[in-house]
Amino acid sequence: MAEASRTSEARRDAVFGRWVVFSPARSRRPTDLKSHSPTNPSPGPSPGADSPAPPKPSCPFCAGRESECAPQIFRVPPDGTLPWRIRVIQNLYPALRRDVEPPPPPPVLPEGEAPPDEPGERAVPGFGFHDVVIETPRHDVRLWDLDAEGVRDVLLAYAERVRQLGEHPAVKYVQVFKNHGASAGASMAHSHSQMLGTPFVPPSVTTRLNCMKEIFDRSGNCSLCEIRSKDILISETPNFSAIVPFAASYPFEIWIIPRQHISYFHEIDQDKALDLGSLLKTMLQKLSKQLNDPPFNFMIHSAPFGLSSSCLPYTHWFLQIVPQLSVIGGFELGSGCYINPVFPEDAAKILRELDCS
Amino acid sequence: MAEASRTSEARRDAVFGRWVVFSPARSRRPTDLKSHSPTNPSPGPSPGADSPAPPKPSCPFCAGRESECAPQIFRVPPDGTLPWRIRVIQNLYPALRRDVEPPPPPPVLPEGEAPPDEPGERAVPGFGFHDVVIETPRHDVRLWDLDAEGVRDVLLAYAERVRQLGEHPAVKYVQVFKNHGASAGASMAHSHSQMLGTPFVPPSVTTRLNCMKEIFDRSGNCSLCEIRSKDILISETPNFSAIVPFAASYPFEIWIIPRQHISYFHEIDQDKALDLGSLLKTMLQKLSKQLNDPPFNFMIHSAPFGLSSSCLPYTHWFLQIVPQLSVIGGFELGSGCYINPVFPEDAAKILRELDCS
Ligand SMILES: Nc1ncnc2c1ncn2[C@@H]1O[C@H](COP(=O)(O)OP(=O)(O)O[C@H]2O[C@H](CO)[C@@H](O)[C@H](O)[C@H]2O)[C@@H](O)[C@H]1O
Ligand SMILES: Nc1ncnc2c1ncn2[C@@H]1O[C@H](COP(=O)(O)OP(=O)(O)O[C@H]2O[C@H](CO)[C@@H](O)[C@H](O)[C@H]2O)[C@@H](O)[C@H]1O
Repeated sequence: MAEASRTSEARRDAVFGRWVVFSPARSRRPTDLKSHSPTNPSPGPSPGADSPAPPKPSCPFCAGRESECAPQIFRVPPDGTLPWRIRVIQNLYPALRRDVEPPPPPPVLPEGEAPPDEPGERAVPGFGFHDVVIETPRHDVRLWDLDAEGVRDVLLAYAERVRQLGEHPAVKYVQVFKNHGASAGASMAHSHSQMLGTPFVPPSVTTRLNCMKEIFDRSGNCSLCEIRSKDILISETPNFSAIVPFAASYPFEIWIIPRQHISYFHEIDQDKALDLGSLLKTMLQKLSKQLNDPPFNFMIHSAPFGLSSSCLPYTHWFLQIVPQLSVIGGFELGSGCYINPVFPEDAAKILRELDCS
Repeated sequence: MAEASRTSEARRDAVFGRWVVFSPARSRRPTDLKSHSPTNPSPGPSPGADSPAPPKPSCPFCAGRESECAPQIFRVPPDGTLPWRIRVIQNLYPALRRDVEPPPPPPVLPEGEAPPDEPGERAVPGFGFHDVVIETPRHDVRLWDLDAEGVRDVLLAYAERVRQLGEHPAVKYVQVFKNHGASAGASMAHSHSQMLGTPFVPPSVTTRLNCMKEIFDRSGNCSLCEIRSKDILISETPNFSAIVPFAASYPFEIWIIPRQHISYFHEIDQDKALDLGSLLKTMLQKLSKQLNDPPFNFMIHSAPFGLSSSCLPYTHWFLQIVPQLSVIGGFELGSGCYINPVFPEDAAKILRELDCS
């Protein structure tokens, strides 16, 4: 480990209210940080390559093996003569099941009043939806190998499926996420993402909304409209900013935030989805280049369905990308605090200056 | 993956308020669940073996290499002619530093009133304490290879150091934890644990206290005094119960809970520490045998220092053991919900019936 050029600092973020300890002494120089378990050591094909590698014989997500998958929900383009580019399907081993009794709808309450949910131990049937988005028919293509339009279409497929799930009265939230690489949890190598529609509002969502509400009540500002520091900015497009958050829990963590105040991801339109697709592609390329194709997760943080209009001023959706460079230990598991060896300003500068063209 | 004998269920626990999705369809049978990255494939020496293996030449935690360590805080037995059995030392690469300016003490407030802590982004100097407990002078001995008295002495060393740190006015909490095995974060193989004294109350501690308070306010009961179900019990001693919690986040997670209502771990006495030492040893042996020497973490969850007496009725310390059998994915990172393929009743039955004598 190298001498620290900065000294330790503890920072709290304005979205999850989380404390993070920045400790440069616990790592080599930020530029030396690389993944030791790259997910795809051989480079992917050049975008648009027109001689696709053959499908992997054992992969049910490859073109031609659709019958080995759980039922399809929709495909892009819609059924027709053209081959599919994206498929949204049911998860064959769903964590939550669409075929069990959903919990009864909560009583209708005056605006702003929380439903009376007895605290304490509780068990409910595992109702919910668990879907998979196959991002490409080709086994050897990664999400960022697609062109910006291709990434846009994946984002629009997420949004469409979230809208569909939002129509079910018992679904309170949809968590969209992607696992890339075994140490980020992926059990399938073929490029895909997942979403879970849950019959409850997940704990991180509640924490986030409470934290953002507290700040809004005191300052009149949305935590995510407020970010103005150029030091943590990686890149900006007409509609989005990509930053390393001020109190990033993980080294080289990236947030892509709509510049306009918008609560729900699933309201995204074609133009904004193209803008986001292009920025997401660039950010994944930068992480791959800088960190040696690291395993990573990304998560879309949106608002629970059916929020009252009084909540909307402080809910602002964003996409979080977390490269998995180190293992979480007992301190993080126990305390919920993270130790991050890389200051966000340093990570942002490295990623900002990295050329991926 | 095997057919589910039970169907999915979502459960919320009464300590962290966390929802966990139990999905047996996502795993093989619970008895088949094994670690793929055992930490110590060759068995350790039999307890009390009196021909120690030679120290590892490169390990600074081994006997004889004390000069390569950061300064010692105390040792067991206290300095004298006898060789040490336990050493508490400073961490050479501390995440928080004892040599920076601590934050100013908060204003004295009337009982029960929270200090005015502006929400939002915040940075403070990285003041705090980061210590290491070397649990044995021998490189080839694991914590559960020690006899019950040996484990007791490690627990008493934790307690003594927590008491010392609690005397510093700026230290609000001490997180005691152990990482065992590389996939549980351990960078040193020699048996050790760590503690971090933080200048803030960590987020998980706040969440836990809020959740337990809400239950106490409604029911008049402490969440951890209330556990009565025999189905999730693994073992009981005069002073402690070992259970798989009703809404365990991780497969084969274990909580060891004092049967009497006690808020602070560091008030433990010799007799209770021996009782706990013996139970902890048995639980670690059971996990090692059942799960193929898995990497694991354990964490002691205690109360923040200087709690007002009105908080004490709902704060109850416990020790949480988490074997690391699967990787966390984007769903857990994003939502704070966990997917657990093993029902607590099944894990408890397996561990209860496993003979380690
Ligand atoms: N033929 C088929 N048809 C349809 N679906 C198929 C299929 N074959 C496989 N699947 C599904 O495809 C999904 C692939 O998902 P990932 O590789 O992203 O991770 P997985 O969900 O396995 O677990 C990771 O993510 C979850 C959620 O974050 C964590 O709980 C877990 O620990 C981590 O390993 C699996 O959920 C699997 O059930
Ligand atoms: N000669 C010496 N003298 C004194 N101390 C020495 C020393 N040589 C090494 N050390 C210290 O000994 C400690 C050993 O700790 P562990 O192996 O439990 O995990 P570590 O803290 O590295 O990180 C794991 O735990 C932390 C906290 O949970 C996570 O942030 C991280 O990702 C995870 O890998 C290290 O903290 C190291 O700094």
